[in-house]
Amino acid sequence: MKPTVGLIGLGAMGSGMAQSLRRAGYALQVFDLRPDVAQAFASEGGSAHAAASAAALAAACEVVVSVVVNAAQNEDLLFGSGGVAAAMRRGGVFVMCSTVDPNWSAIVEARLAELGLLYLDAPLSGGAAKAASGEMTMMTSGRPEAYARCQPLLDAMAARVYKLGDTAGAGSKVKVIHQLLAGVHIAAAAEAMALGLREGVDPGALYEVITHSAGNSWMFENRMAHVLAGDYRPLSAVDIFVKDLGLVLDLARASKFPLPLSSTAHQMFMQASTAGFAQEDDSAVIKIFPGIELPKP
Amino acid sequence: MKPTVGLIGLGAMGSGMAQSLRRAGYALQVFDLRPDVAQAFASEGGSAHAAASAAALAAACEVVVSVVVNAAQNEDLLFGSGGVAAAMRRGGVFVMCSTVDPNWSAIVEARLAELGLLYLDAPLSGGAAKAASGEMTMMTSGRPEAYARCQPLLDAMAARVYKLGDTAGAGSKVKVIHQLLAGVHIAAAAEAMALGLREGVDPGALYEVITHSAGNSWMFENRMAHVLAGDYRPLSAVDIFVKDLGLVLDLARASKFPLPLSSTAHQMFMQASTAGFAQEDDSAVIKIFPGIELPKP
Repeated sequence: MKPTVGLIGLGAMGSGMAQSLRRAGYALQVFDLRPDVAQAFASEGGSAHAAASAAALAAACEVVVSVVVNAAQNEDLLFGSGGVAAAMRRGGVFVMCSTVDPNWSAIVEARLAELGLLYLDAPLSGGAAKAASGEMTMMTSGRPEAYARCQPLLDAMAARVYKLGDTAGAGSKVKVIHQLLAGVHIAAAAEAMALGLREGVDPGALYEVITHSAGNSWMFENRMAHVLAGDYRPLSAVDIFVKDLGLVLDLARASKFPLPLSSTAHQMFMQASTAGFAQEDDSAVIKIFPGIELPKP
Repeated sequence: MKPTVGLIGLGAMGSGMAQSLRRAGYALQVFDLRPDVAQAFASEGGSAHAAASAAALAAACEVVVSVVVNAAQNEDLLFGSGGVAAAMRRGGVFVMCSTVDPNWSAIVEARLAELGLLYLDAPLSGGAAKAASGEMTMMTSGRPEAYARCQPLLDAMAARVYKLGDTAGAGSKVKVIHQLLAGVHIAAAAEAMALGLREGVDPGALYEVITHSAGNSWMFENRMAHVLAGDYRPLSAVDIFVKDLGLVLDLARASKFPLPLSSTAHQMFMQASTAGFAQEDDSAVIKIFPGIELPKP
């Protein structure tokens, strides 16, 4: 017996995940603040249905998957204007997929438990293409009862479902640490490419050498291709890393833990954001470097 | 007709490269400041011969491959106590494999040209194992005449020989930029793993997730395995990155170019060095983080 599933937030990741659930044969409700987006998804066929509101979706579904932007949106969805926590039936599971403060995630698990609801801390990695093909990664933690109701559904959305602990927060901690590396690697890639341009090194040759050597990172290989193409259309925007490296620093500050590179990279993304590149691709952090000419489209 | 080749500096990389040259059938002379090391290499058979001095080697060989530690050692080798430049025959090629200031490398090319000698700027990447198997990478630049005499010899030592320009310095620039990324990635890997330990994340699980996601880097995957094993025996030491990130910063300072992450990472390696970990594996930069307990061997 497949549980009825509702998915809230049909952005780049959420719409791909909804496709994966529909493909796997789940009876699916979707909701987005943009009703036309939800209607368009439902009209593509299968068993998907566009709910009239987040609360209506929550009342009808045993599992609610939230793919909204941040903790504040989840908070409003559950306990504020969304009314989801009040609408869900006892024993239901709220699957929280945003990148958030791990301590916040643990608190939400406790608040939902008081209402007889289960919770999974389940941030994502992998990008829109992998979300659509069901090949993304989930960094999860939560109670065994929550997994018992959700595991096949998680497996339908993700190629790898890491189970990192039996309480909420452990998944989010690993996601936040992942973002530390992702953010520092993007900024380091930009710094290296900028120095190359400053020194008159051919950027294509530099890319070729680095991507075949021990200096490579997943982010260098992926994002510097955008820089070489002069294409800053946002796949993930500069302001995502202003937010996510902020979460990294908040987490560490709570235990007075120093993070020299993360704090430096955060400053670089804030500089890029305030200089006017907030909504460009995160590789636009390279635009903070003076005295260089970037490749044109 | 294979040229006669001399190789100076039988350290981790040099001894592997000498093995590759011997395997490829080159008549090979070797020299190291530790005579027993050179004798031991020669006694392993093949056509290798331990030269009595660097100058004797230079007088006997058409190509001299230098795998010493830094620019100062090359300078002394060529123009100081080593007497190599004076001993080499006109038309000979000096292949400089150290990680050095690109501007220094360009100057040496010019000085040798005045003596009728050719020069290749040819820093390495790949580590001792790849040097021994002939699978390392070389980041080279130099005059066509130098390549004309050396190309088969380079191909015998390296799987990839990148040709980055027709004057010395271009190879070294790419190597220095490579070291920027390598150093920042090692320090970032340490910072991420340290935060995980601080937050009670299982380090093995964190390693598993990161190495299968977009937060990965070649250095995270390689060096954090040392941290998980509690094994800080030096494959590449902390002080190598004190030196190499110093070269990165010197290069950028010459054109007043800011490098926020490189300068931060350099401070981290200097902190580790001065705290007593100078000769430990570079992953020992993680030991600068307070308030955590690292995995034991």
